[in-house]
Amino acid sequence: MKRNTEKEQRQPALRIIPLGGLEQIGMNITAFEYEDSIIVVDCGLAFPEDDMFGIDLVIPDTTYLENNIDKVKGFVITHGHEDHIGALPYVLQKINVPVFATRLTMGIIENKLKERGMMEMTQRKVIPFGSSVTLGCFRVEFIKTNHSIVDAAALAIYTPAGIVVHTGDFKVDYTPVYGDAIDLQRFAELGRKGVLALLCDSTNAERPGFTPSERTVGKTIDQLFQEHSDTRIIIATFASNVDRVQQIINSAYKHGRKVVVEGRSMVNIIATASELGCLDVPANTLISVDELKNYPGEQTVIITTGSQGESMAALSRMAESIHRKISIGQGDTVIFSSSPIPGNEKAVTNVINKLLLKGADVIFQDVHVSGHPCQEDIKLIYTLVQPKYSVPVHGEYRHLKAQAKLVRELGIDKENIFILQSGDVLELTPDSAKVTDSVPVGNILVDGLGVGDVGNIVLRDRQHLAEDGIVIVTFAMESGTEKIVSAPEITSRGFVYIKEADVLMNGANLVAQGALYACQERRTLDRNRIKAVVRDNLSDYFWKKTQRRPMILPIIVEIGRDNY
Amino acid sequence: MKRNTEKEQRQPALRIIPLGGLEQIGMNITAFEYEDSIIVVDCGLAFPEDDMFGIDLVIPDTTYLENNIDKVKGFVITHGHEDHIGALPYVLQKINVPVFATRLTMGIIENKLKERGMMEMTQRKVIPFGSSVTLGCFRVEFIKTNHSIVDAAALAIYTPAGIVVHTGDFKVDYTPVYGDAIDLQRFAELGRKGVLALLCDSTNAERPGFTPSERTVGKTIDQLFQEHSDTRIIIATFASNVDRVQQIINSAYKHGRKVVVEGRSMVNIIATASELGCLDVPANTLISVDELKNYPGEQTVIITTGSQGESMAALSRMAESIHRKISIGQGDTVIFSSSPIPGNEKAVTNVINKLLLKGADVIFQDVHVSGHPCQEDIKLIYTLVQPKYSVPVHGEYRHLKAQAKLVRELGIDKENIFILQSGDVLELTPDSAKVTDSVPVGNILVDGLGVGDVGNIVLRDRQHLAEDGIVIVTFAMESGTEKIVSAPEITSRGFVYIKEADVLMNGANLVAQGALYACQERRTLDRNRIKAVVRDNLSDYFWKKTQRRPMILPIIVEIGRDNY
Repeated sequence: MKRNTEKEQRQPALRIIPLGGLEQIGMNITAFEYEDSIIVVDCGLAFPEDDMFGIDLVIPDTTYLENNIDKVKGFVITHGHEDHIGALPYVLQKINVPVFATRLTMGIIENKLKERGMMEMTQRKVIPFGSSVTLGCFRVEFIKTNHSIVDAAALAIYTPAGIVVHTGDFKVDYTPVYGDAIDLQRFAELGRKGVLALLCDSTNAERPGFTPSERTVGKTIDQLFQEHSDTRIIIATFASNVDRVQQIINSAYKHGRKVVVEGRSMVNIIATASELGCLDVPANTLISVDELKNYPGEQTVIITTGSQGESMAALSRMAESIHRKISIGQGDTVIFSSSPIPGNEKAVTNVINKLLLKGADVIFQDVHVSGHPCQEDIKLIYTLVQPKYSVPVHGEYRHLKAQAKLVRELGIDKENIFILQSGDVLELTPDSAKVTDSVPVGNILVDGLGVGDVGNIVLRDRQHLAEDGIVIVTFAMESGTEKIVSAPEITSRGFVYIKEADVLMNGANLVAQGALYACQERRTLDRNRIKAVVRDNLSDYFWKKTQRRPMILPIIVEIGRDNY
Repeated sequence: MKRNTEKEQRQPALRIIPLGGLEQIGMNITAFEYEDSIIVVDCGLAFPEDDMFGIDLVIPDTTYLENNIDKVKGFVITHGHEDHIGALPYVLQKINVPVFATRLTMGIIENKLKERGMMEMTQRKVIPFGSSVTLGCFRVEFIKTNHSIVDAAALAIYTPAGIVVHTGDFKVDYTPVYGDAIDLQRFAELGRKGVLALLCDSTNAERPGFTPSERTVGKTIDQLFQEHSDTRIIIATFASNVDRVQQIINSAYKHGRKVVVEGRSMVNIIATASELGCLDVPANTLISVDELKNYPGEQTVIITTGSQGESMAALSRMAESIHRKISIGQGDTVIFSSSPIPGNEKAVTNVINKLLLKGADVIFQDVHVSGHPCQEDIKLIYTLVQPKYSVPVHGEYRHLKAQAKLVRELGIDKENIFILQSGDVLELTPDSAKVTDSVPVGNILVDGLGVGDVGNIVLRDRQHLAEDGIVIVTFAMESGTEKIVSAPEITSRGFVYIKEADVLMNGANLVAQGALYACQERRTLDRNRIKAVVRDNLSDYFWKKTQRRPMILPIIVEIGRDNY
């Protein structure tokens, strides 16, 4: 779409441009642009889809920001989860502007920057709740919310076109573990002032009711400690859920257990949260994994990563008996204080089966609450904020759709609800809203040290290789002639078990020889043509014999006359 | 373990030997052996795990049966789901013994046999509920149960050691759609007589309460037809759930809609079920997909496959806009009458998102009930049957464990509950039970026409290729000498995007040349040694530059002197 230039000349507009996060869970990043100012809310990564073989993570294409680098005033970050901060170390290399966040969020960002030696080059500023930062023509106020990580913020973005509220990921928790409840009064005050648009978390918009308080999990955990007072307890949860860790530590302390923390990310975040005072660990409670042997099992608890069945996480290594220091067996109670994220169900269930096989007692139900608002919570926020326009964010399309449906029930017109796609430019003035344009967006794949060097062609090849393997046909030709100077040699990987496929492979060799002979007879010089003939003949042969389509790769070694 | 030969000499025993199905969902097959008689209950396949790249399906290793072929009297099949019958066409080729099943189950088996031209070679016999078949020293009685497919049977196996009851997959449905409710009286009678062992479905053993009747879904469907009387309805469910299809057809008829059936497996099973009288389709209700255009949307309903998000199923093709005859958009209501099977959650959610994006209304909650017994149903069966020994079957380890826990609550001693592993030999006499031995078991992978030609080596190669691709280094050497007669050529697939990796690949070429030069200098003749040197040098180089480990495959083309 072309933007309405006539209108724009009459009246400048606020442009809201999501650069990711709307076709997937993760990779949240949204630009707010007004004339010569751009601010960017969040800068997250996404985890690879199942068919993105070998990819470690996915970051957003920020071409639009790079092309407008002079306008970009800073990143404002809502909270410290990977899907909101994970791409920062990559994107800051290209768009080196200041980063603004609350305390723990900044602590987690700084851990990342330190690992990569990027502290010097990055301007950072911690913003307390209730305070604002002015960036170009924008002022951004950080508002206290609750979430499954401490120090999550919603943002009130004051723009010349009006106030926009971005909730970030949040929940409504009247009795949070650390810090205050969500600042509902501030949401109400903003609503009274008049809010132009609300960008609201949709993750749980399909779920009726209210999301329970984090404290309800604390009670459950305490009960489990009581019921299992005669066993060691291993409890897996999300590393970043500091409140959950706090509650586990509280129960451990109350029941006289020492606490071991396992898993690199868990150790890091606990260290950062303790330093910043977001976590209160009583003296003499933490012990090292090496000290475990000095205590009977029923006096210890191990808090560990791996609640999603991640293959390299500490709990998975314990389940596989490849953890160097902790082995699990009878007399252990393993608690999953988590729910499987969609897509991880099978991995989690595999870990549960392995733990049960080792004789452990495994508890995996009802020891978790969500960090996102359910339908009634979403209605509460809308009712306080009373925005003119609604922009559901954070969730798959089905979740955005579900929020849109709720919002219509609250009386907001269908025309005032915008389900955007990444790249859409939503232009807002005090009395209008319209998608007027789109900017380039996309996924950049990170594989090892490579950022963006694996694209669709490489991925398609990996998928093809995974499906049926590869057959390589090598033969030598005399340079510049049609003369074939070696018989074709056939090698395969991932296709069939070679030692038992003599007949098949001998047949393939005959097919290749026949194809080469025909080319030589026809005096074919064009190497690509010769390769194509060999490839097609072998492909047909293998399909008939096996109904598989391995990748077939003919390689010609050119032997120069001077080598003779 | 060695069996207790002394004891066996005193008293022959019943041997229950699961040959699959206990470490996974699917691949159910259990041998019952007594002296010179073996019968086999079910012969199912499993679907490949996520890391079994390119594999179509998995069948059990039946070496034990092959080695005892003279004893094997027949297959007795509980019901017509793939995880209970899917391996029959493969296994019957090696173990050609008669097959016994109820009517619809046999109809579905015969569809498979016809496709492969195996009808002539296979002896089949339909057994009505309440009847028995005598096989060697066993008598097997088929008992009516309910399940998510019509004509499911439990088996009472009369053996010289006592009666063993095998529930198969089942649920307790007091008001089934087709046929009678589960024959609880028969379970009670058997219990009165005295049952030695009960093998009972564990799939839902973690779920409290009772499984609701299939009819409750019919009511929901009817309500949805009423609410969406002004749109076309597309409803996806499991092809084999004849009762579900019946209820959809009933609602369609009642609301004056014509019915189109889409998806090959759905068409096949509906044809078979109708022929056998298990499905009652009113005249003039079914229309062909080509006739759809003759009716307004609100007068049609499409029953389709694809409720699990299977990429090639009809609903997925509609969602992807690649279905040749049906396109979905606004004015369509799509109903998922199913729950995602663990592992399929993401695929299902992708299809839902795509359908919503097309503007369809999508309903995916609460239009399904399970076909397996929940905890109270399991307790009911145990209370009727009162077995001496309990053998939880059908489910992952966590589910077997959950049933064992329930059974202990019912008062059965821990020592009398046996959670078996595939291959275990459970020996039973009237007053003893013990795992005494184990037999070889395993997964045979089917890929295209190949049965068993893809094993661990090929799979590992596919995983490696999928992860980081392949780099092939080709060079020519003079036969029998250390002389290299062509520069190395490097080709890669699935590694990096070649057109933008000049520097990396030129560097690799230099590394390979260096390695070859060093070998030539050292007058290395051993080709494997030369390959190893090239491979190691390149592997180090690529790891340093990319932190990836592509498969590296050096290929030497030997040029004979006679080719000069």
